[in-house]
Amino acid sequence: MSTGRLESFSDGVIAVAITLMVLNITVPNPAKTPNLAHALGEQWPIYAAYVTSFITIGIIWINHHVMLGRLGSADHSILMLNLLLLLTIGVIPFGTALLASYLKQGHGDNLAAAIYGGILVAMSLAFSALNHRILFARANLMKVPLSLERRRRIYSRALTGIVPYVVATALAPVSPYATLAIAAAVAVFYALPIASSFEAGGD
Amino acid sequence: MSTGRLESFSDGVIAVAITLMVLNITVPNPAKTPNLAHALGEQWPIYAAYVTSFITIGIIWINHHVMLGRLGSADHSILMLNLLLLLTIGVIPFGTALLASYLKQGHGDNLAAAIYGGILVAMSLAFSALNHRILFARANLMKVPLSLERRRRIYSRALTGIVPYVVATALAPVSPYATLAIAAAVAVFYALPIASSFEAGGD
Amino acid sequence: MSTGRLESFSDGVIAVAITLMVLNITVPNPAKTPNLAHALGEQWPIYAAYVTSFITIGIIWINHHVMLGRLGSADHSILMLNLLLLLTIGVIPFGTALLASYLKQGHGDNLAAAIYGGILVAMSLAFSALNHRILFARANLMKVPLSLERRRRIYSRALTGIVPYVVATALAPVSPYATLAIAAAVAVFYALPIASSFEAGGD
Amino acid sequence: MSTGRLESFSDGVIAVAITLMVLNITVPNPAKTPNLAHALGEQWPIYAAYVTSFITIGIIWINHHVMLGRLGSADHSILMLNLLLLLTIGVIPFGTALLASYLKQGHGDNLAAAIYGGILVAMSLAFSALNHRILFARANLMKVPLSLERRRRIYSRALTGIVPYVVATALAPVSPYATLAIAAAVAVFYALPIASSFEAGGD
Repeated sequence: MSTGRLESFSDGVIAVAITLMVLNITVPNPAKTPNLAHALGEQWPIYAAYVTSFITIGIIWINHHVMLGRLGSADHSILMLNLLLLLTIGVIPFGTALLASYLKQGHGDNLAAAIYGGILVAMSLAFSALNHRILFARANLMKVPLSLERRRRIYSRALTGIVPYVVATALAPVSPYATLAIAAAVAVFYALPIASSFEAGGD
Repeated sequence: MSTGRLESFSDGVIAVAITLMVLNITVPNPAKTPNLAHALGEQWPIYAAYVTSFITIGIIWINHHVMLGRLGSADHSILMLNLLLLLTIGVIPFGTALLASYLKQGHGDNLAAAIYGGILVAMSLAFSALNHRILFARANLMKVPLSLERRRRIYSRALTGIVPYVVATALAPVSPYATLAIAAAVAVFYALPIASSFEAGGD
Repeated sequence: MSTGRLESFSDGVIAVAITLMVLNITVPNPAKTPNLAHALGEQWPIYAAYVTSFITIGIIWINHHVMLGRLGSADHSILMLNLLLLLTIGVIPFGTALLASYLKQGHGDNLAAAIYGGILVAMSLAFSALNHRILFARANLMKVPLSLERRRRIYSRALTGIVPYVVATALAPVSPYATLAIAAAVAVFYALPIASSFEAGGD
Repeated sequence: MSTGRLESFSDGVIAVAITLMVLNITVPNPAKTPNLAHALGEQWPIYAAYVTSFITIGIIWINHHVMLGRLGSADHSILMLNLLLLLTIGVIPFGTALLASYLKQGHGDNLAAAIYGGILVAMSLAFSALNHRILFARANLMKVPLSLERRRRIYSRALTGIVPYVVATALAPVSPYATLAIAAAVAVFYALPIASSFEAGGD
């Protein structure tokens, strides 16, 4: 199976997930909002979580693009691992809304942060599983053959991307702000010019 | 009419339907939720139904891809049967939300499960009708001609996919959990490596 | 400007609009619904309006596909008329929800039906304006030149598609059911095999 | 990295954002609406903001298309600036809903208009940053080389598009209606035939 429609379907799912998140940013009810500036200021966790998740999904998309770009064709296992990855991306809007709703509540915030971090860890694991399948188990499907050494370098570099999300999740019981801050730092790091060589496609 | 834009439109509809389902997973209202862990645990039918429907739609997409991949061009009847199939896929998010909302209610759960199963049966029937049209009535539009025997084998193999959904629907009056469990089992089965030869495109 | 990305953007908008409509079909609140079968039966206008609008948008997509397929490239006026058409398609989910909500209310139903019909008339007019621009004012951008006579035949055939929507709107003050019934009849008519020659692309 | 999938992903995000806005147009609750005509008339700011934002996003899409069409391939910085642009487009539905909700409230309306204008300014700045990167810093990635003079002309012409949004934002503390009126006037201006030479791609 050619990869064209696989990419187009994945693009669609990722584009809907990233854009749907704006529904999390609700407009304060005018009848119950004497001071709009204050009400909008109060919901700053929503903006912080929105921007963090938006850039995070955007970077996943870039890395996904690079990863699939190595494929000449896809088999059943690649389609299913890709679907698993899309499933984890698809729940990021929920994790984002959950974290944003509970961050300042004083209860449930640690659990909400752990779930947000856990979704990002699950996404990273699904990404790595698909990456591993493409680079090693199905290397024969690659468009251009790469040396084993180079494939190992690509894979281990991508694998390190899981570490900060594991740390962010582990810190959730201590501070949900730390979880969001680490996820945001990862997003900013990958957005910087220096990060380009750390992407899944970097070498 | 060439099939490129037909595939791209179908991909769009399926991608929106599969991603939109995350809106079913609502965040418990912080003001009314003393215990978030308990509140999230209570809504496990939502997660179970979400994952089941997500993988189910993902597998429909794969099979749809394989089915349309055989076409060199499409006529009016193929466009309309494809639209009918998209209509049944488009209501899966509603069926999923309905089943998830009523599964533990003690009332309405049997009907909700029957509707969920019924939507999957309707989807399978629409899929088979389109498949039949492509393989037999419009075989002249196929990219590469296949022998009648091979087309019959592809069609009957795809047709067997309806059976578990009929069983799941028939069991809804007895146990709505059975309906969900069967739909989940079908999703897991198709996700396993062994299933690749059972897909619409398998031979 | 080539038409590839114009088609892909239009496909995206139409695919989101057609799929988003499922959000109109709400799940009755379990706590307030002693009888689910009755509650689901009560909201039959939602299903009728959903199916009607789904098939209607699907047929618009087919005709849009055929219409743009004649273009070799697009200029500013074509892009803007296409945007106007997408705007009218984009509000069909609202018109559908409005009609479904008021059809059985005994008040507001005539206005709701008039708005639903009016949206379909506006959509048809925008479609015809774009069609006219492509077939006559910008005939030089067509991929394959067609005789004036043939372009006139295509245009007038497509133009007749407005008539039933005008009638449906005109009947709204008398009977909102008539409005929905006519829109549904148009959808069914175009879905039948005999209709294929009446499409914008028919000749 | 080729630009095909970058365009397809951007198209997806823009298509979802533009279509999602219809969810802002809510159906008045029949049980609380004795006079539907009056209730619909009352929410005219929603329609005005919807149409303005719809055409605005549509014109962004056209200009985005022209801008990316000059690229032969994309590097990390282009991907990230494009993601930033998509982020600003992605929040337009929120700004639109905010402005529409507060325009007639007598409180919060100035702030809501300032935020709406501010989002359009941010979008214009992100657009210009990406445009600048493509035309100057990464001119070597362009499909067809353009003279420095011509690139400067394209850039400064596109840059002037920021001015009205800055004015609209600056007027928000005085009159929120002025903010919406200017944004609407920009949309109408670009939609007119005369505007085609003022677009990012105009020369």
